[in-house]
Amino acid sequence: MTALAVTSPPSSAAARATHFKLDNGMQVVVIPDRRAPVVTHMVWYRVGAADEPPGVSGIAHFLEHLMFKGTETIAPGEFSKIVARNGGQDNAFTSHDMTAYFQRVAKDRLPKMMQMEADRMVNLTLDEKDVATERNVVLEERRTRVDNDPSTILGEQLTAAFYQSHPYGTPIIGWEHEIRVLDREAALRFYERFYAPNNAILVVAGDVEPDEVKALAKKTYGKLKPNPEIAERRRPQEPPRRAPVRVKLEDPRAGKPTFQRLYMAPAYSNAEPGEAEALDLLMKIAASGTTSRLYRSLVVEQKKASTTGGWYSGSNLDSGRIAVYAIAAEGVPMAELEDGIEAVLAKVREEGVTQRELDRARNAYIADYTYGLDSQTRLARRYGWALTTGRTVEDIEAWPERLEKVTVEDIKRVAEKYLVEKKSATGILLPLDDKAKKATNENAKRES
Amino acid sequence: MTALAVTSPPSSAAARATHFKLDNGMQVVVIPDRRAPVVTHMVWYRVGAADEPPGVSGIAHFLEHLMFKGTETIAPGEFSKIVARNGGQDNAFTSHDMTAYFQRVAKDRLPKMMQMEADRMVNLTLDEKDVATERNVVLEERRTRVDNDPSTILGEQLTAAFYQSHPYGTPIIGWEHEIRVLDREAALRFYERFYAPNNAILVVAGDVEPDEVKALAKKTYGKLKPNPEIAERRRPQEPPRRAPVRVKLEDPRAGKPTFQRLYMAPAYSNAEPGEAEALDLLMKIAASGTTSRLYRSLVVEQKKASTTGGWYSGSNLDSGRIAVYAIAAEGVPMAELEDGIEAVLAKVREEGVTQRELDRARNAYIADYTYGLDSQTRLARRYGWALTTGRTVEDIEAWPERLEKVTVEDIKRVAEKYLVEKKSATGILLPLDDKAKKATNENAKRES
Repeated sequence: MTALAVTSPPSSAAARATHFKLDNGMQVVVIPDRRAPVVTHMVWYRVGAADEPPGVSGIAHFLEHLMFKGTETIAPGEFSKIVARNGGQDNAFTSHDMTAYFQRVAKDRLPKMMQMEADRMVNLTLDEKDVATERNVVLEERRTRVDNDPSTILGEQLTAAFYQSHPYGTPIIGWEHEIRVLDREAALRFYERFYAPNNAILVVAGDVEPDEVKALAKKTYGKLKPNPEIAERRRPQEPPRRAPVRVKLEDPRAGKPTFQRLYMAPAYSNAEPGEAEALDLLMKIAASGTTSRLYRSLVVEQKKASTTGGWYSGSNLDSGRIAVYAIAAEGVPMAELEDGIEAVLAKVREEGVTQRELDRARNAYIADYTYGLDSQTRLARRYGWALTTGRTVEDIEAWPERLEKVTVEDIKRVAEKYLVEKKSATGILLPLDDKAKKATNENAKRES
Repeated sequence: MTALAVTSPPSSAAARATHFKLDNGMQVVVIPDRRAPVVTHMVWYRVGAADEPPGVSGIAHFLEHLMFKGTETIAPGEFSKIVARNGGQDNAFTSHDMTAYFQRVAKDRLPKMMQMEADRMVNLTLDEKDVATERNVVLEERRTRVDNDPSTILGEQLTAAFYQSHPYGTPIIGWEHEIRVLDREAALRFYERFYAPNNAILVVAGDVEPDEVKALAKKTYGKLKPNPEIAERRRPQEPPRRAPVRVKLEDPRAGKPTFQRLYMAPAYSNAEPGEAEALDLLMKIAASGTTSRLYRSLVVEQKKASTTGGWYSGSNLDSGRIAVYAIAAEGVPMAELEDGIEAVLAKVREEGVTQRELDRARNAYIADYTYGLDSQTRLARRYGWALTTGRTVEDIEAWPERLEKVTVEDIKRVAEKYLVEKKSATGILLPLDDKAKKATNENAKRES
């Protein structure tokens, strides 16, 4: 029940999935995983925060919460309790491009989960009082996760300034003033418009046969009527980048100065062939983890930062982005930190990366791809995420092969093309506001 | 036929307008002006670029162009020719909050104008080919007015970064990639949704009696059916300001470095009593014209700027804003210019303005109010603009009185409250991009 920022789960899988469609348009993916008699059952809706009408930000995530209320046959709040009584765990999340619900249960409980999930796809009942209570839960979630954390506030402000037209600039959890007016009617309107079998993907991973899942799916989801109003998703697209943006947040609660940067980039769904794969590798080499260029240079060698990081988020429907962040080391001013980051990125842009770095990054992804198979949830998630962001089962399964084809030249090319100031937005978090700074300086002067 | 940025026509009038409503909900304002036997006839629609659905930016302005095509009784392109043959002039404009059409004609041609304007309110016919031609006209308009002018591009980028949620951040003319896909259907959908007598205001200024206008209005506009789907306008509102934004545009075509700044402020329609009036006076004193603080300090005394300016835009429906700009004098770096501007604004914030400055600014507005009466178009425009942005005829006519009540304390209070960094967005236009600069520097080095 969380509002997730767009992240980039590396997508790969050795296990070959079976996929088919029900007559009502619902897509089904079955992924074999026979190590234990458990299954992961997920329903992914092709609707997320970026599909919200203007002015009702947060409704996708709010509805996700409300889906745990009741239906005609399940009492309010009972859904998760039933899953737990059946020895399972359940959860849900909302992102800009999708909303997903999932349970992990013993394989013999799969029919029950499918029946319950199919039920709440169309039979949700909402009570005015429950809606009001849940709205307070979401407002509290926002206070805790966003408003109490200056670096999350900065991320929210930076993202809002970064996107000029696309709703990716609106926070998934919603703007507070808009969450406050979300109501039962708005939730039901959104539910009726977007929750339907022909806007959903069923993903089942585990110790099950595709035929078994098909038969069960037909008996449960297969009975639901499609919504003829489900159309291709079209969200406002970004105009071309013309000018870099900077956002400065001063917050007395902030610790050390923090740097955040975004660069606009294509997504897997619309990049030139090989570009998204090269971007994944580029950012692994440049910024991800303690062996990255950024960390080694700024944390280990120059001691300008206490930590750094970065990644490419390519698994979105409409556009991808590159993120880089760093926290200044004690006493290092922001300008020095920023110059240091810029120097590392400029070197990658101008000189590219080495074959050894590329091989190591690629091997890390291949390892990740293998480990990924160990987690049934991650495996199932990989397919659901890809299918709600314009990719196919074949795309996902061919990912390791396409990764193999990336050369050091490809990496230099995408670095030159996308790590450029014009496509960027930079966020700066400083511990004190100007007034407080002045006061502090004046105190310091008086004391000296 | 232009896409106007939000500006702030000072609103005042000695002439008392008569106003009433037709049975179909159309509002009518008649303003006496008997100096010549001419009338200004305007129809204002309560719909502008900020009412556009997401992804179809520019449709309000595009429709404004298409309104000059034909109806069932007027051949395509004939509208303006008929006005001209009748010795008149006509035009139209689109802003974020309204779209207006107007003609200035000899008083005996008023019935004809009313009949023609009422006709195109409901009988517009659009031909696929005309729509395509007009789309190219608008694209060319965008190229000429925006894309050929770096400081307009900067303004567009700055505004987009400034607004996080409100459609005031979208350019009135539209984003180019969205203009490209505007079509006949989108235009007609917008027309049918928003063009109706109960969403329009008729303003007639000139040598006419209110009763005469009423009778004519009943015979023309009065015959049109109201659209029951016209609802109160609700656009997404801005979250509170938390972090200032900066946008940097580097453009080889730019002349000298240019500085632009916006501050979020309330509008006349929703400000605390007296605040909007105080903001108008504050910005007149601080930044408007050659006697302003900004100009005297930066252009005349310090010679850091070749020009400066600024104003308060309070005549919008949802929120107002303060704008300040300056162009650097030869050889003055941006940081020095910016520090100079900040010092002038800080002084106003910290010390306020003098009674003499306030009196002079107020007198200038009062003079403007009197001169305003000389221009029939300005007079009519004042009412139309106010009535489409949440104000009443009474508000407009009481404006000079409310201006009289503003004190130097009021001005200091709004300066402290609104001229603050947190509520601001700053745009910087520099003549060269970094690479070009480096190349220039390196050439310089080699040459020296």
